[in-house]
Amino acid sequence: MFEVGPRELKIKDLSFINNISSIAIIGSSKKRDYFFLKNHAQYFKGPVYAVHPKVENIPNFDKNYIFPALEDIPGEVDFAFIAVPPSQVLKTIDSCVRKKVKLVTVFTSEFSDSGTEEGIALEEELLERAQNKIRILGPNGMGLFYPKKGIAWRPQFPTTPGNIGFIAQSGGICNIAIYGANNIGINFSKVFSFGNGADLDFVDLLYFLSNDPETDIILCYLEGINERRIEDLKSVLNQNQKPIILLKGGKSKTGSIAAKTHTASISGDKRLWDAFLKQYNIIQVKSLEQLLHTARLIDCYGIFNLNNLAVFSISGGYGVILVDLIEKKGINVPPFSPKIQKRLDSKLLLPGTSSKNPLDLAAQFFTENATYEIIEIALSDDNIDGLILDLPSFYLTTVFKTQDNQTFETNIIDALSLAHKYNKPIIPIIQRLNRSEERERILKKLIDRDIPVFGDPLEIIPLLSKISNYKKRLNLL
Amino acid sequence: MFEVGPRELKIKDLSFINNISSIAIIGSSKKRDYFFLKNHAQYFKGPVYAVHPKVENIPNFDKNYIFPALEDIPGEVDFAFIAVPPSQVLKTIDSCVRKKVKLVTVFTSEFSDSGTEEGIALEEELLERAQNKIRILGPNGMGLFYPKKGIAWRPQFPTTPGNIGFIAQSGGICNIAIYGANNIGINFSKVFSFGNGADLDFVDLLYFLSNDPETDIILCYLEGINERRIEDLKSVLNQNQKPIILLKGGKSKTGSIAAKTHTASISGDKRLWDAFLKQYNIIQVKSLEQLLHTARLIDCYGIFNLNNLAVFSISGGYGVILVDLIEKKGINVPPFSPKIQKRLDSKLLLPGTSSKNPLDLAAQFFTENATYEIIEIALSDDNIDGLILDLPSFYLTTVFKTQDNQTFETNIIDALSLAHKYNKPIIPIIQRLNRSEERERILKKLIDRDIPVFGDPLEIIPLLSKISNYKKRLNLL
Repeated sequence: MFEVGPRELKIKDLSFINNISSIAIIGSSKKRDYFFLKNHAQYFKGPVYAVHPKVENIPNFDKNYIFPALEDIPGEVDFAFIAVPPSQVLKTIDSCVRKKVKLVTVFTSEFSDSGTEEGIALEEELLERAQNKIRILGPNGMGLFYPKKGIAWRPQFPTTPGNIGFIAQSGGICNIAIYGANNIGINFSKVFSFGNGADLDFVDLLYFLSNDPETDIILCYLEGINERRIEDLKSVLNQNQKPIILLKGGKSKTGSIAAKTHTASISGDKRLWDAFLKQYNIIQVKSLEQLLHTARLIDCYGIFNLNNLAVFSISGGYGVILVDLIEKKGINVPPFSPKIQKRLDSKLLLPGTSSKNPLDLAAQFFTENATYEIIEIALSDDNIDGLILDLPSFYLTTVFKTQDNQTFETNIIDALSLAHKYNKPIIPIIQRLNRSEERERILKKLIDRDIPVFGDPLEIIPLLSKISNYKKRLNLL
Repeated sequence: MFEVGPRELKIKDLSFINNISSIAIIGSSKKRDYFFLKNHAQYFKGPVYAVHPKVENIPNFDKNYIFPALEDIPGEVDFAFIAVPPSQVLKTIDSCVRKKVKLVTVFTSEFSDSGTEEGIALEEELLERAQNKIRILGPNGMGLFYPKKGIAWRPQFPTTPGNIGFIAQSGGICNIAIYGANNIGINFSKVFSFGNGADLDFVDLLYFLSNDPETDIILCYLEGINERRIEDLKSVLNQNQKPIILLKGGKSKTGSIAAKTHTASISGDKRLWDAFLKQYNIIQVKSLEQLLHTARLIDCYGIFNLNNLAVFSISGGYGVILVDLIEKKGINVPPFSPKIQKRLDSKLLLPGTSSKNPLDLAAQFFTENATYEIIEIALSDDNIDGLILDLPSFYLTTVFKTQDNQTFETNIIDALSLAHKYNKPIIPIIQRLNRSEERERILKKLIDRDIPVFGDPLEIIPLLSKISNYKKRLNLL
């Protein structure tokens, strides 16, 4: 296994990951109800071997795939998940090297993450034993989630493969993202939890995803990187063509101490990081939620420039709030061009409506084609880059007797899909303050149409200018 | 009906509202399927009369309560909801005056909200006809939601009375709040949608809620007030003893124009408003969602001072993110006092845990009493004012085989209820990225225990210092 990439770039080759076809789980025990074995076996299509010196029977698991030692397995093993006690990790690595395993996850913790001399020494020894012949995720990591292949470290992980890659040190962060991201329409290509990053670190994994044909958008939760890797990171970023969205952990004083305890990371100076990320046009966000929502926006609409936004509301008050928040973020809510304004004036005739930007449909929302027609006219304005709207989902229920409710709802969803016809983002806010059953129903329909849905203006509005700024810098670079 | 309040305070008396015992709906028509009649009749316990010159039969409505004119009703009418065309509003008001109705809602729009001379003149005429003998909500308003009495302007409004009052010009904003706020544990005492505020305006309604024994917390969405009312507003605020949380609409340039269209409000200079609200110690928020969440926090925990926060996480990474966001808002995540630290050290022993602040329970979360014990120790630290935690709800499912799941979940909920024992806020973040069925189940249990639940750190962390600052200024005033 050799280092690849541009000259002098010390990046490890991980291209074999897309061809993993056999797995061994080493150390999954009865005490833990074979947790990691069951998890990795739940969806994987190729052979999954259980390696344990004493276990001969595992409920609902084919006896013929249980081996006392890794080397007893007749076939090849591409990937091994290691969950043995710390004292047994080194000899397990030795056997993985002998078996020519390509990638291992060391789930076991109490290496450099312990902060003790012994732990740090054990991690160094681990690397030596690996002899650069085997690639390691961890120690103290959950490893690899790869839905296309069916590789999953937790029960009931989603099975739909996607095009969004995620790199995180923390396994817990990955769990939250993986269990929930499909709620907002996100599907992952690969998720890496690399823990202490003794071997494979942020730079290696970023390079891999940056060149992975299955990944279009790269998400990162990063607590810190080793200073000796900065030049490599710059090289990776220089060759990268994909949007990278990053959440930096440990930016506060106490946060940086906590990051050190958590994954032995030196999180570094906040200002240096901010400048670095800006220089390399990495989209920086403040929370895991922003990380995922930004990915969803880009996944639906690509990279867009949103200088001028139309605002569409059913409650004039909510429209006013939206405008205040949007203009505060430096995005304009400009007048429509005269020709478009004339067309809108002729459509919005009921009392209480406003045909100016922000549009207020008021009761005209309940007339059959109003939403579709108004959105289509607004988007056809050359001066308008996109449209944001609040959509109280209870207005779509039969309670309001909006003619034939099914047609009405379909019409609204068709109206929002005009985003793709006009290639301009439409951002619906279906307030979470709505009754949840209605919200869930409409959310699912919109996800199927590649329309992102948000629940709170403060959740989405700050992200819009992040994407615009990314595009502007991209044009400058 | 006379003006009441301190000397020279021009505030209208609304104390009769708590005694409304009869309602008339004027102008609810077959064309609209008797929408407002049905809505007001759905929960109201006293007589509800339908007034319409031509209608004699209304499905599922007692014929004996239908009258061609208001004055034909034999009994008293305390409150009338007027939904007649603009041209008929004046004579309807005349009849209300003759009938000695105490309060009317004029739902009809196209008064000053139309921006036309005719509309403005019609609104002035309306006030003259009322002769100060009758109080008016509107025109262009939805009126009064009063769940304790069963007064509701929309179908399926929640029926549980609460202690939170809400004043808004916009009826749409009220609808979103009313339909959804019970999702987060909020129940309203009264909600007022006063539209153009021709008679009853923000100042009158604020004075009423400020003195209403059924209201403890006052929420406001305000686009603007008439300059001639500023001195009255100051008097109301000077006598007010309750927390007021306010969302100001129309703070941006385009937003202020939109507010003018929406409710004929002059929203005024942003900086003047900010200074004014600060001077009178009004908690200002940025969105409807923040308005409601701040109320929920105060409703659960009262007014608290949160200088020093303990952070409790199951995923160390999420804990790091929380600390970064908290410290950015000027709240400390300090070390525990030595005695408390010693006790925590002796409890958090599993690999991967951290007993320092931020606490990282890692896998020890899954041991039966860990969460309860750790939270109790942390809260008993005199230097700690409260605790925030992330609670991925999927960790509470049987998928994770956490012993007897029911006991485990109950134990977690008991642990969070320690907030009330120690009189220190506990702020759980159950990420919305979790699977929704689990989140909903736990959310409901926590609402019953008066524990507020949030879904995103950025949704809650900015609100914590708002409440602390309110308390600090309260002590200074």
